[in-house]
Parts: sequence; structure tokens; C-alpha cells
Amino acid sequence: MISVEKALQIILNSTQDFGTEISVEEIPFLKSSGRILKESIFADRDFPPFNRVTMDGIAIDYTSFQNGQRSFFIEGIQPAGSEQITLKNTENCIEVMTGAVLPKNTSAVIRYEDITIKNGIAIINIDTIYNRQNIHEQGKDEQKGAELIAKNTLIGASEIGVFATVGKSIVKVAKQPKVMIISTGNELVDVDEIPLAHQIRRSNVFTLVSLLETLRIPSTTNHISDDKEVLKNTIKEYLEIYDVLLFSGAVSKGKFDFLPEVLEELGVQKLFHQVAQRPGKPFWFGQTTTCKVFAFPGNPVSTFVNCLVYFYPWYYKSVGLKMEEKTAILAEDIYFKPDLTYFLQVKLNYKFGHLIATPISSNGSGDLSSLIKADGFIQLPNDTTEFKKGESFKVLSFKC
Amino acid sequence: MISVEKALQIILNSTQDFGTEISVEEIPFLKSSGRILKESIFADRDFPPFNRVTMDGIAIDYTSFQNGQRSFFIEGIQPAGSEQITLKNTENCIEVMTGAVLPKNTSAVIRYEDITIKNGIAIINIDTIYNRQNIHEQGKDEQKGAELIAKNTLIGASEIGVFATVGKSIVKVAKQPKVMIISTGNELVDVDEIPLAHQIRRSNVFTLVSLLETLRIPSTTNHISDDKEVLKNTIKEYLEIYDVLLFSGAVSKGKFDFLPEVLEELGVQKLFHQVAQRPGKPFWFGQTTTCKVFAFPGNPVSTFVNCLVYFYPWYYKSVGLKMEEKTAILAEDIYFKPDLTYFLQVKLNYKFGHLIATPISSNGSGDLSSLIKADGFIQLPNDTTEFKKGESFKVLSFKC
Repeated sequence: MISVEKALQIILNSTQDFGTEISVEEIPFLKSSGRILKESIFADRDFPPFNRVTMDGIAIDYTSFQNGQRSFFIEGIQPAGSEQITLKNTENCIEVMTGAVLPKNTSAVIRYEDITIKNGIAIINIDTIYNRQNIHEQGKDEQKGAELIAKNTLIGASEIGVFATVGKSIVKVAKQPKVMIISTGNELVDVDEIPLAHQIRRSNVFTLVSLLETLRIPSTTNHISDDKEVLKNTIKEYLEIYDVLLFSGAVSKGKFDFLPEVLEELGVQKLFHQVAQRPGKPFWFGQTTTCKVFAFPGNPVSTFVNCLVYFYPWYYKSVGLKMEEKTAILAEDIYFKPDLTYFLQVKLNYKFGHLIATPISSNGSGDLSSLIKADGFIQLPNDTTEFKKGESFKVLSFKC
Repeated sequence: MISVEKALQIILNSTQDFGTEISVEEIPFLKSSGRILKESIFADRDFPPFNRVTMDGIAIDYTSFQNGQRSFFIEGIQPAGSEQITLKNTENCIEVMTGAVLPKNTSAVIRYEDITIKNGIAIINIDTIYNRQNIHEQGKDEQKGAELIAKNTLIGASEIGVFATVGKSIVKVAKQPKVMIISTGNELVDVDEIPLAHQIRRSNVFTLVSLLETLRIPSTTNHISDDKEVLKNTIKEYLEIYDVLLFSGAVSKGKFDFLPEVLEELGVQKLFHQVAQRPGKPFWFGQTTTCKVFAFPGNPVSTFVNCLVYFYPWYYKSVGLKMEEKTAILAEDIYFKPDLTYFLQVKLNYKFGHLIATPISSNGSGDLSSLIKADGFIQLPNDTTEFKKGESFKVLSFKC
């Protein structure tokens, strides 16, 4: 049995190279939210691309104001989206709109609030104006050619806006792994069926589908009965087709827990089996040259926590994304004796900028309904048994 | 000009009733992630539905162990997914698998790790066992009929798992509002076009599409030129079709900022125009009996922040979702003199359970590229001018 830290290290050392040139795809920019950018995005022009008026009002030659002039004949108008015009007489002014190019020969913009217009003459009502005021200077935000977005950025609304601004209608993103999610266990029936007294409905595969959907990874699901030959033939085929297989169940010590045996018979290299943690201990992890196999224990909370603890970081590293660690403060003392890392269900709240983790009572790894009340798991390390209120620990949140 | 608090209050008092019976739709449970549940979910059976074995091993009658017996003939096997069998002789045992029904006449499960099996006899190698050990008792997590998930819950992976478990293949969720996002401004060209010197590409509408996608709200976009008649005819039609119109631009004091005038001419009731905030001040909000109109200022950061500050809470309230307030701790002193609420761009990091907000430098509301470096906005109220390092404030995060 290995530690959580060691297990994670092994998994992160066997990330698939979804982030190389081979594993990149081009998609329309508006479909790219939640994906990982696989190219740098550069400014195609200066930002702003011209000296941009930032207030509606008039543009004047500042020296005229300096020389004491306060009344300006309106020579013309410069709307946003029109070609730059020129102030012909520097003792006149031009009406300008937010977003317009600053007219030639002008050097300050005075807003409508600070002037009076009468008979085509604008009179300035304030005593102080500054040279270049209300002008967003060309290239002030970014120079043409500057990197605006680095490769390996998680794409969100602000990136989508920048793609549009620089004309990147198609963007390079990391390909998503092709994932098959498989449940085992003869006690399971479909969601639409009425279970007999000794049966329950399949749920873990759907929980996993949803957890992967959060990462924008589409997945397929299947159920295989606890029959060694059927299991073997089906998995053999899947190993050829998919980048990742996620299993739920059949990895413990039961008489029908054929999975580790079958995987090894199929040539899947076992990297470990059993991790010193609660819940989720019987986790089995292995690989072929083209496929990673995460075989999670079948209890609902075990499957759930292992997906967050192991599959999520594996995915992040595979696509080149650095994720910040989230920490939270325990709201209660916790005593946990076993020599295991303890993933404790918690409710998360912000109080004065502190992220507070309040433990949720649960009846163990089979208690799926307790997860409804939780927002995440706090990770209590196995180097001690007493965890004090006020101490902070890593937290894996699954609700934002 | 009204305050941010007052503006928000007006908006929250005019939420649309997307959460009523009329505004509910039924969708497949696996498509419901990110949506708002509009029914209570009850346990269709006890959870667990039977006394469930939680370890692979043997089941015995505990009284036999109490009477000093340590060696048990294996009478049969109870796999998961099989009908409950009966221990005929209470001095024997039955092999049991995780997930199986506890056999009749047995009252404790001993795991394989704690026994030796030889010639069909299981010998217990430990001194202490407890009555009912390794048994997840029927109904311990939830009793049949108990409410597992409350109405108005945001659906995520754990809810999806519970839907599956109780056989809810179709769930009732809040209908999403029908939203049209409209840009105005003659300086704007399409993403695929090469702008002339005085033009820029449309970007705000796409930022808004992405921000709404985060809420699982699909939207449509269009651009209308700064022509009062065209604007009026198009908006007239949209007011009939959509639940929400989001505008970007044409709400300031410019000669071509026709929007407020046009909306009022079309009978849209103005609820306010201009909010004491930076950025995003010229925000206009109004309604008809069937449509809400959020007319945001056209600068990219203004549009972005106003969507988070106003549209998001309006949506949450409309669908019946209570969202927790997030707070963060300022990493630097900030001095801000204007009598305005200041939405300052920040980078967010967790340190020992504290959410730290580090200000990002920006060149004002036109500087879209500065948003790439930010994770959110910290909301600095207008009742003071000095904000000290270490103080906590509300934060609107747009990256998790």
C-alpha cells in the first residue's frame, strides 16, 4: 500500500502527451471556453490602435486653452467608426464621441458635462484642463506584437474577448482525451429500471460523466457484468480505442473482483494497487503505451473523491495547465486515528476572506446522499491524528 | 445617479418568474448539470435498501463468536446482486462480498484480512469483533420518503449521482431565459474582418456569450449600426421575442448614443440610468412586462463587470438560487477618491485558507487585455477612500 502523495506522483509521471503538436486541435473561438489554449495570442495592432477618445464632448488644441481661449467654434464632428478628420483652425474645436479617433491637431478632450454649446459655439465652464486628457493613447495597453495570452491558459470569457479583438476566429486548443467509463457489479441495474430487493441502480458512472463534463471532457459509459471472460474481451477492445478507461468497482478483495487480474492478463502494466487513504483505498492504476487505466473502488464516495484527487490533476498536467492549490480552514477539531490520508466531506463558506471548511456527517463511503450537503473534501494528512479547528489544509472543491 | 446597492435592489425586485410552474422544463438527468432543480428529490427506498455488506469476507452469527467459536464451516456464498440467502446452521458462515445483502441469520462481517480459509473452513485470527460490524444498516443514510435534494439546488455531479440512484431519469429544472446580446457602434467590424485604422473588432458580445455560457444560458448575438430608425425597428421586434436583451454601448452622452431614447420611445420603462461606480457608470436598466433590458456601457471592462454585478444576481434570483457571497482579503493598500463604488481587478490566490486579492494594474475600462491577468473584481464601497491591506471585501470572481 502506498501513500496518496506517492500515488499522485506516479500518476503525474505518466501523463499522456495531449499537449504536444499531435494532440492539438483547431476549433472556433466561441466554442473554446473551458479548453486549454495551445498557442500564444499576440496583439495584431497597438491596443488601442489609435489615440482613442474616452469621453463624449469636444476636442481642442490644448495650447489655445493655455493661451486663455475659452470659447471655440465647432468646426466638425468626429463619430466613432469614422475616418480621422483634421482640425483646420486650431482656435476651433471638433465634437468627438467615445471610441472615436482623436482628430488631427487636437490634444485634449473636454466632456459635455463641462461645456455649454450655443449657436455652434462651445464654451468651456471649468478652469483646469490637462494636456492629453480623456485620450486613451495608441499602444498604451499593449504594443503591436506583444503576447496577450500565454500558451496553456484555461480559456474563459476574457480570453474569448481578446480572441475576438485580435481576429482569432479559430484557436488551437489541447485535444481532450477519449474516455470510456465502465461500471461493474451484478447488483447494478439501469436508471430506468425498478431494482429488486438485492439490487441498486447504477450511479457512479453518471457522477463521473458529470465530473468530466466540468473539465469539458465528453465521455462514453458502459456496464459489464462480473463475468471474467466478458470483462476481458470488452476491456481488450476498449484498450485499443480509448486514451483513458475509468472503472468503478471490482478492485477490492471480493471473489468476483476480477478487474486487477484481467487488466494484468491483458498486458496493462500495474503501477499500484491500494492507497493509504479513506475513502478510496482499493484504487488500482495502470497503463499500456496508449491507454491509462484508473480503476476506482465502487463505493460512490470513493469513486467521487478519487476522480478529484487523481484524475483531475492527471488531466491538468496532460494538457499543460497549472492549477493553484486551494486551502481551507477547519471549523471543528477532528480526530482520525488510522494511518491513512483522510478525505473529509466539508461545507465551504467564505467569512471575511477566509475559506471555512465545516465537516459534514456521513455514514462512510457508501453514503452518496451525504455528498449533496458537501461542497468539497478537505485532505487531512496521515502524519498526525489530531486536526485542530483553525488549521488550514488542502481542499478539493466540487462546487464553486 | 444611484448607488450600486440601490441599482442591485431595483434589479432584484424585477426578477422574472422563471422559477414558477410555467417556467419549468423537464430534461434528461444527465443533461442537467449546471441547471437549477425545480422539484424535491425523495428517497424511493431506504438508503441503503438492505443491510449491506461493506467488506469482502465472511458473515457469521455474532453469538457464536461470543460463545467462543473461532472456526466456521463455509455454508455458501452471497455475491453482490444476488437474492438474500439464509445461514441454515448458525455455527457455520457464509462468504459475502461488498455490496451484497447480508445473509439471513448473520449479524457480523469479518474481512478476508482477518481470517484464514483452509479446506472449506474459515478461522478467525483476531480477538475482538463487534456485533453488526462491517454492515451498512438498511435505512441508515436515509429513510424511504426522505427529501434527498431540495428544490432550487444547483445541479452538479453529486446530484446527478442521486438522480440515478433513485431512478429520476427525467428531472424538472428552471427554464433558462431567452437572451439576445446586441452590440452597437459604427466603429465595430466582425472578428473575421480586417479593421480599418479607425475601426476595431466586436468583442463584448462574445465576452457576454461566454459569461452566460458559464450559467448554461444559451444566447444569440447581433450587431446594430448607430442608426436610430434601424435600432428602433430591430429592438421593437426583439422586445417581443426575448426575455432579456443585453446591450453593449450607446448609453452614454454621445451624439449617437440613441439607445436610452429609443428604448423609452418603444415603451420600455426606465428603472435607472447611471450608477455611482467605476467602471460601468452609464449602465441603463429597464423593462417591459415580458422583457428586461440591461444596457451596459460599451467599454469592454464595463460590460464585463456589469454582467457579473447585475445580470448574474438577477439570474440567480429569477431561477430561485441562493448564492453565497465570496469575500477576499486585499493584498495592498488602495486609495480611491471618487465618490463611486470601485470594482478593482484582482488576481486571487489561496494562502493558508485565506483568499488573497492582489490588484492588477490596468489602463481603465478600455483595457480588455488587463482582464487576462485577473481572476475577479474586488468591490470597494464608496463610503471611504482608503482601503487597507488585510481588510476583506466582497469579490466577484470569474475564474474558479
